[in-house]
Amino acid sequence: MRIAVLGTGEVGRRLATALAGLGHEVGLGSRTADNAEAVKWAEGRPGAIHGTFAEVGAAAELVVNATGGLVSLAALEAAGAGNLRGKVLVDVSNPLDFSGGFPPKVVTFDGLSLAERIQAEFPETRVVKTLNTMTNAVMVDPGRVPGEHVVFVGGDDADAKAVVTGLLGSLGWPAARIIDLGDLTSARATEQLMPIWLRLHGVLGTGDFNFAVCRAADQPS
Amino acid sequence: MRIAVLGTGEVGRRLATALAGLGHEVGLGSRTADNAEAVKWAEGRPGAIHGTFAEVGAAAELVVNATGGLVSLAALEAAGAGNLRGKVLVDVSNPLDFSGGFPPKVVTFDGLSLAERIQAEFPETRVVKTLNTMTNAVMVDPGRVPGEHVVFVGGDDADAKAVVTGLLGSLGWPAARIIDLGDLTSARATEQLMPIWLRLHGVLGTGDFNFAVCRAADQPS
Repeated sequence: MRIAVLGTGEVGRRLATALAGLGHEVGLGSRTADNAEAVKWAEGRPGAIHGTFAEVGAAAELVVNATGGLVSLAALEAAGAGNLRGKVLVDVSNPLDFSGGFPPKVVTFDGLSLAERIQAEFPETRVVKTLNTMTNAVMVDPGRVPGEHVVFVGGDDADAKAVVTGLLGSLGWPAARIIDLGDLTSARATEQLMPIWLRLHGVLGTGDFNFAVCRAADQPS
Repeated sequence: MRIAVLGTGEVGRRLATALAGLGHEVGLGSRTADNAEAVKWAEGRPGAIHGTFAEVGAAAELVVNATGGLVSLAALEAAGAGNLRGKVLVDVSNPLDFSGGFPPKVVTFDGLSLAERIQAEFPETRVVKTLNTMTNAVMVDPGRVPGEHVVFVGGDDADAKAVVTGLLGSLGWPAARIIDLGDLTSARATEQLMPIWLRLHGVLGTGDFNFAVCRAADQPS
């Protein structure tokens, strides 16, 4: 599949590398055409390209938003509604405001999550929120943390969620550990997991952890 | 120990019953002196009393806030700062506003959690936030859910947290599954767990679940 990863930070590069490793043709996108991280990342990597948000977005069948949550809307506007139309947009970002120091605040948008705000602004794009509740190393290698920890998926388009669930499976997530939370309003819940995630990061001294949901064995999964 | 449980709802009665079962002298407190639930609860139960928030608060060495989060401040004011002075206050409540329908909003207080707001209003009381991230049946019987699920503890007073940790142990929580999140600002993180808890409740069709934190075995616990 042709995949655009928007955002050249650690999250974006990690996801782009993992997806390219799975044989996808991946474009790493940034605000500028000659982003040093993106150029370096694409160099010599089979099927890899780099470019502006719009360039990689136009070329892709599926787009991953790995930009910082506070600049995601601007990045997606730069990508262009036309280039995102009809496509699955995997939103892994969190709208964290560090301006007041640590811990950051999770920004909401008139009560909506960032994912819902994106969906409202790009109604013809099919937004799926996932992977935003863990560190990027765990996103692409769930086996590095033991136990039955989970990844959440939320979105309004069932077909889009099925595509994303398949992608998660190819990254190593067993089906039983992919929890479909329903529609995109569920992104409010997963984005609000950031405060406890950040707190646990401090207490445990590592980001190499993830949440599990324990339940009685006879409960429906 | 003489314990006051403020709040005669399901959470309060469940905690009061469990604590009385452990041999504590428990007072179940309500806004009025003749609350039917409280009268019924105390009847024939060894060491049990019922009364107003102030009456049971005055008699207690440790106080549990199990009132609804939106009325907790009023309930604690009714209990009286003098009756709470120097005591450990175990806050298990969540400030959920259902006025806009489901899902409820988690109310914050100028960016503070309810627990911090309580601590600010009762500076001579030692507030410990705990148990607010699970259904009441699991609070008092962690074994009903399998797995290494956890309970969080946060508070500014180390001695108070030690008392509460001991109480949690007597309710069946193994020490390794009691996670000390540090000071009371951590209550922002645990109160914000409500949205994902409520969402999972809907998806799983049961409240009989709890969160675990999976981490590599060689990480510090």
